[in-house]
Amino acid sequence: MRDKPQNLQLNAHGELQHLLTIEGLPREILTRILDTAAPFTEVAEREVKKLPLLRGKSVFNLFFENSTRTRTTFEIAAKRLSADVINLNINTSSTAKGETLLDTVDNLVAMQADMFVVRHAASGAPHLIAGHLANIGNRHIHVVNAGDGRHAHPTQGLLDMYTIRHYKKDFSQLTVAIIGDVLHSRVARSQIHALTILGVPEVRVIAPKTLLPSAVERMGVRVFHDMTEGLRGVDVVMTLRLQNERMQGALLPSPQEFYKSYGLTPEKLQQAKPDAIVMHPGPMNRGVEIDSVVADGAHAVILPQVTFGIAVRMAVMSMLAGG
Amino acid sequence: MRDKPQNLQLNAHGELQHLLTIEGLPREILTRILDTAAPFTEVAEREVKKLPLLRGKSVFNLFFENSTRTRTTFEIAAKRLSADVINLNINTSSTAKGETLLDTVDNLVAMQADMFVVRHAASGAPHLIAGHLANIGNRHIHVVNAGDGRHAHPTQGLLDMYTIRHYKKDFSQLTVAIIGDVLHSRVARSQIHALTILGVPEVRVIAPKTLLPSAVERMGVRVFHDMTEGLRGVDVVMTLRLQNERMQGALLPSPQEFYKSYGLTPEKLQQAKPDAIVMHPGPMNRGVEIDSVVADGAHAVILPQVTFGIAVRMAVMSMLAGG
Amino acid sequence: MRDKPQNLQLNAHGELQHLLTIEGLPREILTRILDTAAPFTEVAEREVKKLPLLRGKSVFNLFFENSTRTRTTFEIAAKRLSADVINLNINTSSTAKGETLLDTVDNLVAMQADMFVVRHAASGAPHLIAGHLANIGNRHIHVVNAGDGRHAHPTQGLLDMYTIRHYKKDFSQLTVAIIGDVLHSRVARSQIHALTILGVPEVRVIAPKTLLPSAVERMGVRVFHDMTEGLRGVDVVMTLRLQNERMQGALLPSPQEFYKSYGLTPEKLQQAKPDAIVMHPGPMNRGVEIDSVVADGAHAVILPQVTFGIAVRMAVMSMLAGG
Repeated sequence: MRDKPQNLQLNAHGELQHLLTIEGLPREILTRILDTAAPFTEVAEREVKKLPLLRGKSVFNLFFENSTRTRTTFEIAAKRLSADVINLNINTSSTAKGETLLDTVDNLVAMQADMFVVRHAASGAPHLIAGHLANIGNRHIHVVNAGDGRHAHPTQGLLDMYTIRHYKKDFSQLTVAIIGDVLHSRVARSQIHALTILGVPEVRVIAPKTLLPSAVERMGVRVFHDMTEGLRGVDVVMTLRLQNERMQGALLPSPQEFYKSYGLTPEKLQQAKPDAIVMHPGPMNRGVEIDSVVADGAHAVILPQVTFGIAVRMAVMSMLAGG
Repeated sequence: MRDKPQNLQLNAHGELQHLLTIEGLPREILTRILDTAAPFTEVAEREVKKLPLLRGKSVFNLFFENSTRTRTTFEIAAKRLSADVINLNINTSSTAKGETLLDTVDNLVAMQADMFVVRHAASGAPHLIAGHLANIGNRHIHVVNAGDGRHAHPTQGLLDMYTIRHYKKDFSQLTVAIIGDVLHSRVARSQIHALTILGVPEVRVIAPKTLLPSAVERMGVRVFHDMTEGLRGVDVVMTLRLQNERMQGALLPSPQEFYKSYGLTPEKLQQAKPDAIVMHPGPMNRGVEIDSVVADGAHAVILPQVTFGIAVRMAVMSMLAGG
Repeated sequence: MRDKPQNLQLNAHGELQHLLTIEGLPREILTRILDTAAPFTEVAEREVKKLPLLRGKSVFNLFFENSTRTRTTFEIAAKRLSADVINLNINTSSTAKGETLLDTVDNLVAMQADMFVVRHAASGAPHLIAGHLANIGNRHIHVVNAGDGRHAHPTQGLLDMYTIRHYKKDFSQLTVAIIGDVLHSRVARSQIHALTILGVPEVRVIAPKTLLPSAVERMGVRVFHDMTEGLRGVDVVMTLRLQNERMQGALLPSPQEFYKSYGLTPEKLQQAKPDAIVMHPGPMNRGVEIDSVVADGAHAVILPQVTFGIAVRMAVMSMLAGG
């Protein structure tokens, strides 16, 4: 009975209606987002960092899970597009009073919102909201998933693709390795889908078995348990945050053990191509998934990822609601 | 020695100076607010939802009691009027450092605020602030009560009147029933005053004795303890939120018992007129004061209440500070 | 290896690059800030309280320590200059996830901020940030210290100087007394430096020995332990907040004892000149460091301090980032 996300994401004309997940999106949509983002990187360098594309629109940041950093990036992107931004930290609000998620959403719809940026600890929450909007016949409000449970973080996936394209120009010849806690990572899922859709011929994951989803190969990746093998000849190294707070018990001996086997050190990085780039979605655990020498070194493009992230979010928002 | 609220609310020309309570306001003021709100409902449907009426004004949301929902409606209303909005959650701030309420207010006055939107757990706090402004000779800053203790929630009362007028056109022929926890409800007080002032000939309250203020009849209402009797032939059914968090002990056996006797079900609603409308101030306790079938049914105008609430708050704010 | 604050604060042309501390700033810079603030006091009295000087700039309020009042003054100042303001309460954010302060800063730099307003419990945090910006070659982002540990609160010191100049015109003939908990007070440090630089011939501190830094005389002040002596003939009385929350154990018998010896009462104030002004940085502990009769009396200029504080912060922000 419920629509699949990809059917909710595109309208009848094949245009982006919501951004819930990268899975199932056509390559042209991904490419159009990256193309749209490019000029926005220049806006941020002007004296007046404002465009009127979302002037008079109301963007609601619905954060059911606290994340100052992600909320900030969306708030800046929306304000640079001249939108009005309303921040709602909903854990402390109506849901505490026993209201259902969809009653909360209905109320915000009735306040004539134009966009919901949704962060939620439960996988599928943004999809549930988008499905509800379709059910009530609302085609005006656009939903952007800002991270839901272990499911997806599509703007992170897109900004990673922007970064790769910026440095490597072409996806079609690349070998990309994703290292670490794939099991708990919505970021890794969005990255794998994006890389595959954009035509990267070899996507690798490098992790201990305990930190990989079962049957991860079906996502189109090659699995490595050893860093030396997995990093050999790669163009792009994508490290993941070790989600200590999401782990229960016996998946991992200790962060120190993880660092020894899977932490990205200068020595291990030597297996990659000499011009390889190193990425991280932040915030970093230095000395756990990444060594400080690498994090601050010449291969790292971790801070450009953040800069491109603002432009990519501006692109998504303006494509959705910019008229 | 202290002025009565109605004397504080109107200036020497009979214009609205503060909105503290509906009690004692002249009918013409209420009607003018509703008339002013009407065109604002259309602003929200434009591409650019902005009017310059409060441009360059500073609206301070002083929330001494947390309420994301109410704060959001005022924030949206102010931003659509182009005001600068400053959100202050004051429970975690200066009062925690031992500063008095009026010292806090004096400081915000010194910051050249134009409007205080005040939410406070203590009945009379907005009135105290307005009285203090009068005492120090400040006629520039306007106070809007966004809910104080059990006392009043005038913008909620006004948006309810806007909703009734929208659907029923004329107040002079109506029978209106207010159901539930009148005792703890600032919303009910504001509704009763507004309905009476606007000339509704029959206002009923339906509740167990334990949830009614003593001598509630003096407010000009007819009291019913039975839903079947109380709902017979009514045009408007106003349900109230059961304020679990404000109840101590033995007023109520349980929410389930309350639902059985006073929850608004489709069966009970059949006593009302066929074109009756059903209202709720939100957030709803589904299955307690209202059945989901009714909440989502054809009689419910609960979400239009929210939409009209933005327009009514824009009307109040622009009448107070729009020049 | 690390630059001294005064070297970080001024650029190669001797213009203000950051505002970290008043210590070491040239008198001309202080005077220029006060001169720049003067016309901004009039902006606040206009109908439209906006100037376009920071239009399209992003001001980040980085509050690692909660302070609604100080955050509000900076937020208002930035909004009156038309900046976009992003509020970050970072205690609950990334640093909780184990990210280092400088990683957080690097991320915000990558978001193309124009200004960081920094409040931190640790002395030196804004200096650390400014030093880091210099190390990475960023000359675009300006840091304003909004209070760091016991070290400095330069905008408070500046607004105090604005207030003194407003009422006393000339610094060169004044006797100024600072009373109370100098030991824990970043405000007192900034006041002493500012008064000295601006040429006040006699700056006194009045406090029990336990609430004075060792060798406080080296800052150029005369020390008094007795109010009658210390207040004799002064032009300006600057009271300090008793920082109960920063005291451990045996520095003070009790607030009541403090009031008896050092609380500013009308009787004690009679020692000062008849036209003396009384200041307090707020929030006041009435009946501890200041008697309510004095706080609300004819000598008090405590609320004008707040008003001037907005103008002074607008001046600092526009000098730093206004082009």
